[in-house]
Amino acid sequence: MHRKTLIIKTGSREEFLDITAKVREFIRSTGVERGCLVVFVPHTTAAVTINEGADPSVIKDLRNALHRLVPYGDRGYGHREGNSDAHIKASLLGSSLHLLVEGRELLLGTWQSIFFAEFDGPRQRQVWLSLVF
Amino acid sequence: MHRKTLIIKTGSREEFLDITAKVREFIRSTGVERGCLVVFVPHTTAAVTINEGADPSVIKDLRNALHRLVPYGDRGYGHREGNSDAHIKASLLGSSLHLLVEGRELLLGTWQSIFFAEFDGPRQRQVWLSLVF
Amino acid sequence: MHRKTLIIKTGSREEFLDITAKVREFIRSTGVERGCLVVFVPHTTAAVTINEGADPSVIKDLRNALHRLVPYGDRGYGHREGNSDAHIKASLLGSSLHLLVEGRELLLGTWQSIFFAEFDGPRQRQVWLSLVF
Repeated sequence: MHRKTLIIKTGSREEFLDITAKVREFIRSTGVERGCLVVFVPHTTAAVTINEGADPSVIKDLRNALHRLVPYGDRGYGHREGNSDAHIKASLLGSSLHLLVEGRELLLGTWQSIFFAEFDGPRQRQVWLSLVF
Repeated sequence: MHRKTLIIKTGSREEFLDITAKVREFIRSTGVERGCLVVFVPHTTAAVTINEGADPSVIKDLRNALHRLVPYGDRGYGHREGNSDAHIKASLLGSSLHLLVEGRELLLGTWQSIFFAEFDGPRQRQVWLSLVF
Repeated sequence: MHRKTLIIKTGSREEFLDITAKVREFIRSTGVERGCLVVFVPHTTAAVTINEGADPSVIKDLRNALHRLVPYGDRGYGHREGNSDAHIKASLLGSSLHLLVEGRELLLGTWQSIFFAEFDGPRQRQVWLSLVF
């Protein structure tokens, strides 16, 4: 198994960062021909998701839709830190992805990119990559 | 590792197709005794989910609930292709499943079926199956 | 591969139970140094998610937010059993997690706990743990 921790700095409270290039770079650096990649976010107010990276408005629409479904600062929350919306969004998108590697390349569809989803930034975050072969 | 690409033709814009039988058929065809199965959707306006297959009204209720939570054609979307709702639903359900195989059979609960979720059809789609053993 | 079925008894209709200690206990009992753990819920009205375990109000806020997004007893549902909301919440959170084990320990972030999410209790439920190494 090869492992790597990506360090990510987010610049605003809610932000989606395309980490596909960094993931591909990690896979190539291992030289592994074929295996399974786990992308894991070790935080409870951030997540990871796959969506279209070509048109940035897709991700903006996703961020806005989550913001509308789970409002920030809603008076009904009990958690005193005031970031319950971020915890809820994290569970809706999920904290891990499971992907395949073949021919030393990550297998993704044509329009798919991997996004780190920040819901309580700006912060310094981690993404754990593990390539099992 | 054994791999297979399922080709799926959807007939309407939003549609859930039960692909459990096709997945089971693939597993049996490999003859693999025990392993892990990754079900991956290489699209950004479709997803894969597990839910009840016995009563079709369950899946209709799921489709309707997603439609209500993330309306089609909402004026607030920035993405010009007009299918932002489909991208958002795809991230809410997710693009992969990770299942177990034992005794040459897929391990699922009694009421569980695997559904391909189309959110921007009708289209021809792919589902990538990979059995790691 | 090591496998174990956790038996869980839930006490109310909607309830999140922290199963992290039971998962860690299983991993230690196997003596496995390094591998991948699949946590799978074989039900269609329950789910599994990772979120903060330190402050119980976080999980209450998550439960309430899901309850608000997908109301119980909504007249629009077609499924006659009356638990369509539970099926929908199950698909929103998902039925499996994929985690890593290293140094005989489960790799989780500081604030992360694993929660079994009951949406149609009280019931006796199962969680399937599989450690692939």
